[in-house]
Amino acid sequence: MKKAFIFVLFIAIAMPSGYIPAYGKKYAAEVRDGAVSVSSPHGTVKLCFNVINGIPYYSMSFKNRQALKQSRLGLELKKGTGLMDGFSIAEADTSSFYGVWKPVWGEEDSIVNNYRELAVKLEQKKADRFMIIRFRVYDDGMGLRYEFPLQKDLNYFIIKEEHTQFAMPGDLTACWIPGDYDTEEYEFTKSKLSEIRKLFKSNVTPNMSQTTFSETGVQTPLQLETDDGLYMNIHEAALVDYSGMNLNLNDRDFVFETWLTPDALGDKGYMQAPCHSPWRTVIVADDARDILASRLILNLNEPCKLKDVSWIHPVKYMGVWWEMITGKSTWSYTNDFPSVKLGVTDYANAKPNGTHGANNTNVRRYVDFAADNGFDEVLVEGWNEGWEDWAGNSKDYVFDFVTPYPDFDLAGLNSYAHSRGIKLMMHNETSSSARNYERHIDTAYKLMKRFGYDAVKSGYVGDIIPRGEHHYGQWMVNHYLYCVKKAADYRIMVNAHEAVHPTGLCRTYPNLIGNESARGTEYEAFGGNNPDHTTYLPFTRLQGGPMDYTPGIFCMKISSFNPQNTSWVRSTLARQLALYVTMYSPLQMAADFPEHYEKYMDAFQFIKDVAVDWRKSIYLEAEPGDYITAAREARGTNNWFVGSTVDENGHLSHLNLDFLDPGKKYVCTIYADSRDAHYEKNPESYVIIKGVVTKNTKLNIKSAPGGGFAISLIEASGEKDLDGLKKIGNTSRIINYVKK
Amino acid sequence: MKKAFIFVLFIAIAMPSGYIPAYGKKYAAEVRDGAVSVSSPHGTVKLCFNVINGIPYYSMSFKNRQALKQSRLGLELKKGTGLMDGFSIAEADTSSFYGVWKPVWGEEDSIVNNYRELAVKLEQKKADRFMIIRFRVYDDGMGLRYEFPLQKDLNYFIIKEEHTQFAMPGDLTACWIPGDYDTEEYEFTKSKLSEIRKLFKSNVTPNMSQTTFSETGVQTPLQLETDDGLYMNIHEAALVDYSGMNLNLNDRDFVFETWLTPDALGDKGYMQAPCHSPWRTVIVADDARDILASRLILNLNEPCKLKDVSWIHPVKYMGVWWEMITGKSTWSYTNDFPSVKLGVTDYANAKPNGTHGANNTNVRRYVDFAADNGFDEVLVEGWNEGWEDWAGNSKDYVFDFVTPYPDFDLAGLNSYAHSRGIKLMMHNETSSSARNYERHIDTAYKLMKRFGYDAVKSGYVGDIIPRGEHHYGQWMVNHYLYCVKKAADYRIMVNAHEAVHPTGLCRTYPNLIGNESARGTEYEAFGGNNPDHTTYLPFTRLQGGPMDYTPGIFCMKISSFNPQNTSWVRSTLARQLALYVTMYSPLQMAADFPEHYEKYMDAFQFIKDVAVDWRKSIYLEAEPGDYITAAREARGTNNWFVGSTVDENGHLSHLNLDFLDPGKKYVCTIYADSRDAHYEKNPESYVIIKGVVTKNTKLNIKSAPGGGFAISLIEASGEKDLDGLKKIGNTSRIINYVKK
Repeated sequence: MKKAFIFVLFIAIAMPSGYIPAYGKKYAAEVRDGAVSVSSPHGTVKLCFNVINGIPYYSMSFKNRQALKQSRLGLELKKGTGLMDGFSIAEADTSSFYGVWKPVWGEEDSIVNNYRELAVKLEQKKADRFMIIRFRVYDDGMGLRYEFPLQKDLNYFIIKEEHTQFAMPGDLTACWIPGDYDTEEYEFTKSKLSEIRKLFKSNVTPNMSQTTFSETGVQTPLQLETDDGLYMNIHEAALVDYSGMNLNLNDRDFVFETWLTPDALGDKGYMQAPCHSPWRTVIVADDARDILASRLILNLNEPCKLKDVSWIHPVKYMGVWWEMITGKSTWSYTNDFPSVKLGVTDYANAKPNGTHGANNTNVRRYVDFAADNGFDEVLVEGWNEGWEDWAGNSKDYVFDFVTPYPDFDLAGLNSYAHSRGIKLMMHNETSSSARNYERHIDTAYKLMKRFGYDAVKSGYVGDIIPRGEHHYGQWMVNHYLYCVKKAADYRIMVNAHEAVHPTGLCRTYPNLIGNESARGTEYEAFGGNNPDHTTYLPFTRLQGGPMDYTPGIFCMKISSFNPQNTSWVRSTLARQLALYVTMYSPLQMAADFPEHYEKYMDAFQFIKDVAVDWRKSIYLEAEPGDYITAAREARGTNNWFVGSTVDENGHLSHLNLDFLDPGKKYVCTIYADSRDAHYEKNPESYVIIKGVVTKNTKLNIKSAPGGGFAISLIEASGEKDLDGLKKIGNTSRIINYVKK
Repeated sequence: MKKAFIFVLFIAIAMPSGYIPAYGKKYAAEVRDGAVSVSSPHGTVKLCFNVINGIPYYSMSFKNRQALKQSRLGLELKKGTGLMDGFSIAEADTSSFYGVWKPVWGEEDSIVNNYRELAVKLEQKKADRFMIIRFRVYDDGMGLRYEFPLQKDLNYFIIKEEHTQFAMPGDLTACWIPGDYDTEEYEFTKSKLSEIRKLFKSNVTPNMSQTTFSETGVQTPLQLETDDGLYMNIHEAALVDYSGMNLNLNDRDFVFETWLTPDALGDKGYMQAPCHSPWRTVIVADDARDILASRLILNLNEPCKLKDVSWIHPVKYMGVWWEMITGKSTWSYTNDFPSVKLGVTDYANAKPNGTHGANNTNVRRYVDFAADNGFDEVLVEGWNEGWEDWAGNSKDYVFDFVTPYPDFDLAGLNSYAHSRGIKLMMHNETSSSARNYERHIDTAYKLMKRFGYDAVKSGYVGDIIPRGEHHYGQWMVNHYLYCVKKAADYRIMVNAHEAVHPTGLCRTYPNLIGNESARGTEYEAFGGNNPDHTTYLPFTRLQGGPMDYTPGIFCMKISSFNPQNTSWVRSTLARQLALYVTMYSPLQMAADFPEHYEKYMDAFQFIKDVAVDWRKSIYLEAEPGDYITAAREARGTNNWFVGSTVDENGHLSHLNLDFLDPGKKYVCTIYADSRDAHYEKNPESYVIIKGVVTKNTKLNIKSAPGGGFAISLIEASGEKDLDGLKKIGNTSRIINYVKK
């Protein structure tokens, strides 16, 4: 049966801000056998859409290889007729878009946004209503979303479940963590899809708040690979006023389907037209490095909505934090009370426990070290009243975010820090009591402005209040963005921990400079992260936005300073340096203690030198679960930094420095694992090799098991900079296999 | 088995503010057969407490008649051992208290608080913890509460259910409404306890938000009566950070038990020690009038916590309200949109629907009439954007509380009103979207201060957001008080509709000048209230605090001005006047339209004259469901006002004016039903009789079916005031059976 489609070809409208050139391009969509097809600008990705027996489907290919089999689309509603079937195509509009935009901070200083678009208007005649499914097809994947225009009979509706499918072309290999409504702090597992079910339970490690829903449930970004080397990555972009997405796998047919986070009533979304879902994204490539280089998710987010971004800046910081995480000191001030009440508990006359980390002397010590070494800010956790019983009690009024402990001189410490060129970084742990945080957020932010803070780390540990809500439900998704917008009103940058997975919203609200939403370095003190953990994160968690991973641990054996804690860090010291490059973030912490850095100031030099904002990023080698090597050029300089992180098997890298400028010489400093380094047996053993390199240099560098390396490449401004340095590289020799 | 009790006798500490004289009085508690007894100051009420097989019980008698049989006490917890059994008495402290306090506004200008107290410390040895049950025994009843002091093993706990029993001494007669977590807007039914189950369903009339839980569930204040004339009233006092209480009846044994409102997870209270439950109260009397005169619930609340109360004042007001309620006009401004989004919907260019009530011309009309007749304020509903789709959509961002419709000149109308000596009264309908209200409450209240509003009517129509929460759960109880305290910070008075039943908190926060929490006059436009409705309310709803009942309807047939609405008001006009006296509130509305009052300006005179704040109140006659006649002396004058409301049978009142000052003469104006008046057939027929009376005067006044009367008694300052007036009363003649 043939249908008459109305194709409306139109010119894409240039985006109002951020774009340099922008033009639209007409093209004709292919129509064959009742299906609508659209190909990416250079034809690598092809998207097919059709309606069969009233049900919408799509499929996708990459360079003529099947990436997604025929996959169903639709939404189930709580009441009345769903949006699952009974559809016919009323209209199919096609357009194309090319634009370049400049992120406020990022891995590049400009990003190309080039796609072809197909918007299909689907009519559901029995219910007298319609919706639009919009596809944007890029050379490295596609995004699709549901749109619900204002209309007579679809104004308010409640989503019971979204049933967007991603039908795999076989039993792929996935890098996955268990699906959960409340935490993403799980280890990654690389397995066949068919193995997920049997591996599921053992992967659900304990967390302060967690809610799994299916033994084949997994989270996004989900990194996938076919046996013949096709890489795919499924996630969502621009998650606004909608529930966060997990995926559930039908492991008979290898079909993933969206599984939204429910609210306290089990409902999955309260919608009011006109509105739309977030984008459902699939990045596809035949080289794993192209997954890391994809900007598809950022491109599918709205341009920056902040008028003035002059106050937003990358931040390199230290913090009174690792000592509490490792149990060396405490967030709490006193052990006098089995529970405390803000405004009632008399802290002034309480007996200090002697372990409180956020005390005046200790904070000054961090400020001094940070100032001496060129940092921007110092985070202080545990500075405010309430930490004695903050976690695990479902306590509503848990913090007021403004009242310091007696031994934390709020005014004095800020004033001291400022005198040393350092800002303190605010910490607002909410204990997941969202109502309480919203009640205090204005006074909290006003306090920050009064004392000169410009960045806040917020936290959502434990079960959500309102009780029954989840970290990734619509309620909390709304809350997180509320806080980011409110912070922008106060010119405050936000780094939210335990929040929903990022979906590229930092493009729209670039004051969202960081998130956690995965197992960070803190888990190295809670039993350890797998040695390959950081080879997964850029393929998964980081697809949505930067992570405050807090690298830079130099002392791996935690029992050496806290005998109670037998955890040890599963990384060599050299790899800790590499993470500043491989784990892109405009917010980078040097997480260890000043006294630990003082033992290795030669290695610490890399942390001092490394940039946090980039003109260009190149992925030199990458394989999820094995290794990642990235090179980045610092904004505003011609200097480059290279980092490599590898799994428990170690790795030999053959680096070609041909990304460097021709005709220039660079002072190259390599921070690498020593020959006998090993993440467990000898983690703090490294070598530093300094020499001169050019774009013709080739370097062979061996990373130890659980190791890695970091390189700084500083442009020589003249021969003086090269005094006493020799050319290095360009032999088959492994450059770091020298005696220490 | 005998136990050794430690009796600690101590002097009650005088309350810091509001009290005139206050002293404590030692007395010895009676101990007999392992039970502890305490009698009220004058011995009328006796309370017995004992522990049998580890379970705590209490019972109560009034003038040696059994009021409550042995009734169990205890709480079931969500986790671990409950607080139901395994108890032994560790300590029993007794004390007494006498004090007099002065309410900011009220039925009296001073209130005696005189009780004997028994605090029993109950040890639960198996769990190594304890709680205190505190009883306060008054001559007109008792209050008891559970207290949880700070201790090692009872810091945080979750209440699964509170099991406080009220064991009835038989199959009593109750004035009840269906138990519900979300609404109290039901008609009262007077029936035997044994009849509740079969009457239940037919009493559950539809509401925008309602959740019943048991076919023998009822709400408090619950008015009860034994066959031999013992009256009891069960309620709660000082409901703070706890779930609102319903009662469930075991109708085999006639035992009521507390049934708390659950949260979204089904939990009934999140507690952190030190803390306590609200008071569970039982007022008892052998004359129904003494139930109305009881101040037990106010006395069990904490003294005023506001330092400055100079800005709090009683309010007599009119409003642009009844015309929307009756359907004559609309809250909404336009019919252009099937749904609206604040900040997106273009109201400026929308087509006005022509029925919007809150327009400049109409508001000025109300302001003028209110100013001409001595009112304080004019409420305007529907002034702000968002009313097009505000109800029934579970819409989160439903109002911003600050953006007026195009035809409401916020600045101009306030300025005009002020020029006429009138304040506008703010309206903040939340549509039960509590998060949204809290997010905007500061800007909303700041707007009020900027434009000179000092009172807000707030509303909670529809299901609560956070979804799954209920109007009477701990979450919302916390919210309502949050708003009242926040309002106090801005010196704003609050009148919250659809909120939890009041529990005397207006003593502690006297800026809470009104609540709805029952079927108000609005239901006269939604099908009508039963003619006896207002003979129940003072015995039930009003026990917890004043109600914004909005009386004063002069035009009973709604179809006369809105043909679409066939409702009619079940009341005579004379009774509408009476309600200003029988329904005590510091906030009194004249709810009808100016043009309706203009038809009956002689009757309207009473509304102009009647006071809204009182030195003294006397209940002349009362029987729940039949009639109530009250007399009140206005503060700051020697004038008295009398009101009487009666049921569908009519009533003949024999009034003795001996409450008047000896030796004084009063100008008495009686507004009574005419001989042929009838709430259905002839509701607007009344007579006005004016004459001179003294304390020796007796008046016989007949109220029509569904009728009533009002009397003003103005002290004559000299003979001139009495010019042309005759003595009236003191014959067996019915004074209002005259020709009109």
